[in-house]
Amino acid sequence: MRLLIANANTTEAITQRCADAARAAAAPGTAIIPATPRFGPEVISTRAENIIAGHALLELLAQHAGQVEGVLLAVSHDTALEAARQLMPCPVVGMTEAALFGACFLGARFGLVTFGGVETYRERIAAHGLTSRCASLVGLDVTPQDSLRDPDGVARQVLDGIQRAVTEGADAVIMGGAALAGFGPQLQPQAPVPLLDGIACGVKFLEALVALNLPKPTQGSLAPPRGRASVNLDPKLAALLRG
Amino acid sequence: MRLLIANANTTEAITQRCADAARAAAAPGTAIIPATPRFGPEVISTRAENIIAGHALLELLAQHAGQVEGVLLAVSHDTALEAARQLMPCPVVGMTEAALFGACFLGARFGLVTFGGVETYRERIAAHGLTSRCASLVGLDVTPQDSLRDPDGVARQVLDGIQRAVTEGADAVIMGGAALAGFGPQLQPQAPVPLLDGIACGVKFLEALVALNLPKPTQGSLAPPRGRASVNLDPKLAALLRG
Amino acid sequence: MRLLIANANTTEAITQRCADAARAAAAPGTAIIPATPRFGPEVISTRAENIIAGHALLELLAQHAGQVEGVLLAVSHDTALEAARQLMPCPVVGMTEAALFGACFLGARFGLVTFGGVETYRERIAAHGLTSRCASLVGLDVTPQDSLRDPDGVARQVLDGIQRAVTEGADAVIMGGAALAGFGPQLQPQAPVPLLDGIACGVKFLEALVALNLPKPTQGSLAPPRGRASVNLDPKLAALLRG
Amino acid sequence: MRLLIANANTTEAITQRCADAARAAAAPGTAIIPATPRFGPEVISTRAENIIAGHALLELLAQHAGQVEGVLLAVSHDTALEAARQLMPCPVVGMTEAALFGACFLGARFGLVTFGGVETYRERIAAHGLTSRCASLVGLDVTPQDSLRDPDGVARQVLDGIQRAVTEGADAVIMGGAALAGFGPQLQPQAPVPLLDGIACGVKFLEALVALNLPKPTQGSLAPPRGRASVNLDPKLAALLRG
Amino acid sequence: MRLLIANANTTEAITQRCADAARAAAAPGTAIIPATPRFGPEVISTRAENIIAGHALLELLAQHAGQVEGVLLAVSHDTALEAARQLMPCPVVGMTEAALFGACFLGARFGLVTFGGVETYRERIAAHGLTSRCASLVGLDVTPQDSLRDPDGVARQVLDGIQRAVTEGADAVIMGGAALAGFGPQLQPQAPVPLLDGIACGVKFLEALVALNLPKPTQGSLAPPRGRASVNLDPKLAALLRG
Amino acid sequence: MRLLIANANTTEAITQRCADAARAAAAPGTAIIPATPRFGPEVISTRAENIIAGHALLELLAQHAGQVEGVLLAVSHDTALEAARQLMPCPVVGMTEAALFGACFLGARFGLVTFGGVETYRERIAAHGLTSRCASLVGLDVTPQDSLRDPDGVARQVLDGIQRAVTEGADAVIMGGAALAGFGPQLQPQAPVPLLDGIACGVKFLEALVALNLPKPTQGSLAPPRGRASVNLDPKLAALLRG
Repeated sequence: MRLLIANANTTEAITQRCADAARAAAAPGTAIIPATPRFGPEVISTRAENIIAGHALLELLAQHAGQVEGVLLAVSHDTALEAARQLMPCPVVGMTEAALFGACFLGARFGLVTFGGVETYRERIAAHGLTSRCASLVGLDVTPQDSLRDPDGVARQVLDGIQRAVTEGADAVIMGGAALAGFGPQLQPQAPVPLLDGIACGVKFLEALVALNLPKPTQGSLAPPRGRASVNLDPKLAALLRG
Repeated sequence: MRLLIANANTTEAITQRCADAARAAAAPGTAIIPATPRFGPEVISTRAENIIAGHALLELLAQHAGQVEGVLLAVSHDTALEAARQLMPCPVVGMTEAALFGACFLGARFGLVTFGGVETYRERIAAHGLTSRCASLVGLDVTPQDSLRDPDGVARQVLDGIQRAVTEGADAVIMGGAALAGFGPQLQPQAPVPLLDGIACGVKFLEALVALNLPKPTQGSLAPPRGRASVNLDPKLAALLRG
Repeated sequence: MRLLIANANTTEAITQRCADAARAAAAPGTAIIPATPRFGPEVISTRAENIIAGHALLELLAQHAGQVEGVLLAVSHDTALEAARQLMPCPVVGMTEAALFGACFLGARFGLVTFGGVETYRERIAAHGLTSRCASLVGLDVTPQDSLRDPDGVARQVLDGIQRAVTEGADAVIMGGAALAGFGPQLQPQAPVPLLDGIACGVKFLEALVALNLPKPTQGSLAPPRGRASVNLDPKLAALLRG
Repeated sequence: MRLLIANANTTEAITQRCADAARAAAAPGTAIIPATPRFGPEVISTRAENIIAGHALLELLAQHAGQVEGVLLAVSHDTALEAARQLMPCPVVGMTEAALFGACFLGARFGLVTFGGVETYRERIAAHGLTSRCASLVGLDVTPQDSLRDPDGVARQVLDGIQRAVTEGADAVIMGGAALAGFGPQLQPQAPVPLLDGIACGVKFLEALVALNLPKPTQGSLAPPRGRASVNLDPKLAALLRG
Repeated sequence: MRLLIANANTTEAITQRCADAARAAAAPGTAIIPATPRFGPEVISTRAENIIAGHALLELLAQHAGQVEGVLLAVSHDTALEAARQLMPCPVVGMTEAALFGACFLGARFGLVTFGGVETYRERIAAHGLTSRCASLVGLDVTPQDSLRDPDGVARQVLDGIQRAVTEGADAVIMGGAALAGFGPQLQPQAPVPLLDGIACGVKFLEALVALNLPKPTQGSLAPPRGRASVNLDPKLAALLRG
Repeated sequence: MRLLIANANTTEAITQRCADAARAAAAPGTAIIPATPRFGPEVISTRAENIIAGHALLELLAQHAGQVEGVLLAVSHDTALEAARQLMPCPVVGMTEAALFGACFLGARFGLVTFGGVETYRERIAAHGLTSRCASLVGLDVTPQDSLRDPDGVARQVLDGIQRAVTEGADAVIMGGAALAGFGPQLQPQAPVPLLDGIACGVKFLEALVALNLPKPTQGSLAPPRGRASVNLDPKLAALLRG
């Protein structure tokens, strides 16, 4: 089974880190194919960057359409998730989506801990229809520099954030964003609830969906584009739109 | 990997049918262990029966605690789902829960077709927090006898129900209940969207959750019972409550 | 009028305490008949216990079907409420349900104060559809031992919890759970809003429903079971399922 | 116990009809005191009339403050309900509010049948926070003249409306508005679910609330007005605002 | 364009202050016509006062029907908003409504800062259907006396409240109520998000709606009253009800 | 006042039609500046196209940043609305957003009529938080060819759709999408409620917002990007991301 790990940021190092995490989670027969967009923001952290990255991601996916059995969007914003699902002839899963659904399989309500603001996650959770299952969103005031300078202090802050989410009713806590990915395995022994990582969840649920072997819809808003004309797009993307 | 396929009805034939479906979906290394409760309704179809079956199911699970890596509740009501999740030291998934989240991975909104009334499903969908993702609930006025007497006519009704759900906005349609299980594979070639079966989805997501190898919570409402006293219960169930 | 006060815990002392509270609230012509289940948890405090108690409660009710004019579920979880409503040929009210609706009759939004976690109540409130009317859930970190050792200190904590709920917008506050029952009358003189007790509310609303003398439904998910087969159940419960 | 049956329309005949229905439902010791406003619409049927009637109703209530133990708002719009609750030193219940909560005590979801448009009821249900418990709103195209000219035909339409609500998931059906009040008792024998009348429900729940003997709030938005100055108001209403 | 600035309080000074703010916001060709009700509360601050003021406001509007092109309700409760919209032959906007929609045009979620309790605003926001866009409601414990005695201290509190709303996710903050009106322009240079004033927003959106020149509905709950009989009402109001 | 009418489709003719409509609605001093993206779909009608057009639109806006006082997104999907709002130093309004808020200013609930599927609009309405105010979504099975071949027949279908929305509770109806734009003025005389056009509403509300002269946020998710690095983007867009 060939799974595309599609970053929506243009920073190759993030792609590689995600691909490594994906390989660690993948079943023996699963091949992990990392991919980075040709253009766009180095690291998505604002609304405008996320929109630009959506196009970049679709162009990237178009290069791999038909050559992979599944796609994991390795970006915490689940950038262009439903458009990717419509465009690609295989299952597509977002890493935050996967972590959210994974958490729902484990408990009644979930929490999420991240660095920086939480509005992106609030909106993602609402878009997935899961607002009533979210017990707590914890945004820690931690910068990437802090993580390098004082990793133990930052780990303590993350653990405090996890505990706060549990106190507010979370049965499982999602580690939100690539920057927090490493903390899950490190802090799990001390954490009172399971900690979920979007890449690991995404790989496993994608393997499950590929195995279910369901067809794509031919009607409705997720049916693949047919006969759509466009100008000045990447040829492979334009071809997918034409159907 | 040993997965318990736990029926909550006492009808052995239903258990076997579910186990067969589970085996068809399972990965090569997955062993399917069917189980039927000692007491309770033959076929759950009312609120009172579902409550009784909850106890029967927990007693049944208690006989297998520690001997299986995962539990699939092979009952469309997701009977006692969160209690089972609390009680058992392994992942637990409900078959309707699995189909619902599977459908959410495939499209923006889902539909569900079933025989008889839809209130059970409406309540399950609300309990999972997924009301806003439900486009259509279609309850067909079909009895088990109809299915035997006129299978082709019933199949046409099911296909009409699927099309109605799609017209109302569904990107994927869940075959609700054991009685509809066989129709998914049969009607998929003619259906305009993917058709989801709870047993197949349940087995695959359970395999994914077992592979993620996450610990159970030690705090919150899903933490296993400790020191809970009871009277006149099955010894193994009472032992699990004592912790 | 004969009202059954049905405990879902097997602790006889709790049944008696609830029956005493019910008698204090009952109208002159109302007879209070206490009842305790044959099996199940001594005190329900986890999800698994609540499921088991559901069956125990239905079995208990079956012994009294036709001999009482109304049933009050004397258990803060409203255990098996809708199943009991379906099964019994008379009105059935849950004590938390009664307190919630009572609070809605008194103010725009309500609060609830309890000992321990609040998730059970959050879920009950959501199940009753009243989430938007809940201003505040206050879970006090108080054990039964604390209540015995320092009753005045605990009373102060409860009063602080009431005030916190009012500050957060509550026009009425529910005393959640049997352990808090006594505090209502004691603290009412100092409290800025009415304090509601589930047993008192339940008895009065049940008297009202009995007086309305409405028939049970014959269609829909609350219609009594008919022709439902079961195995190894209490004979009277099995008889009710057969209809 | 003295209960005020306060109409918000100025049509005395409606007041008398409501008072008769209230007397039929009242317990032996309950005295029913009918009251009609001094000014305002003859029959409220638009938004503007309902606002005007709110003032008329509060002025009317002010004449009776301290002389009654409870107030039933005998108007299907629950006109000025929360303001009346704030102003009066006794429990206040709205007739539609009472029917809605009565229906919630009897089933999982309710329906409502009325003559004319349903938007008023949709808004009342939302204001009470009960939208998720509403299965069906049925507005019949029937005028008062129709009821006089062809009572049997209208009764059949109402029964069809009840059945439609049940088919859409209602476990109990509210007869919405004074014009439908008589149909409940008439059609109940043929109806598949209980039919609720707001006046009867209102009297019984009001008796229950009076018996609970709870104090009014002294804080929050339902605390009685104190020191509020006004101009050109009825002296008794102005006095209540001053506190 | 003639715009009526209709106060619902009887305090002339408030009307004048609102009219001044309206003139400051109005386009060159817009005439501002202030109006104060004949009766009712001097300053609405409770539920009962708001109901009385609803009638007073409709009577006031009836004096101006046909003589103005638009109406701004200069009262933070949006008193009788939809009834006014039904009654008047021109567009009607509420000042809080205008600020809320203005904030929605500027950001994903909004906050609101006010003096005293926030329940009125919570209910207004819910009535407008905008609950999911409200990030924060901040009620400051400030009296009119405080504002006079320590204006700088109060301004600091308001700024702190604004910052708290932003921290909780607000992209824009509404200055709630007449008492806060002046703080918007004063604090805007120091505030991290736009501050919205209901009078200014109301005037501009009303000018926009008047320019759109859309007809009133002739069907539905906003269609003007026709043939409605009433007793003891102001002649012009009664005439509008008759149609 | 200079307003940019930014199409997100690359079809110049649509841009011109929108610009004409905008000019018809604009105040005397308002200049309308039409703009069409350099790349992307000719006509957005699928999810994937909408994502691509988001980038195209932001690139287009970047060419005009600082040279216009306001931006109207002339695309029914409100493509990239919040990203555009974040990126541009002036107010930005979406045409569907404007029509929705305009409808909310006119009635309690609104309807929408469009050609083809309604899921896009359902999602937009939910994203704006206005689901509870939507009474009816009517998708007519009409193609652009139908409009050319049988304009009268199509007009009758649109009028039927409007009436259906009103019957389902709409007080105002939005003409959804560019294809329906012309029908509003044509059918208004026969329609029972106001018909809203997104371009006209957008121009008027944008003029209102520009006149309010509020600053952009400096904190939160709508604060302009600062210091964001990117690769292979249009220089002006990259410059805006850098801040």
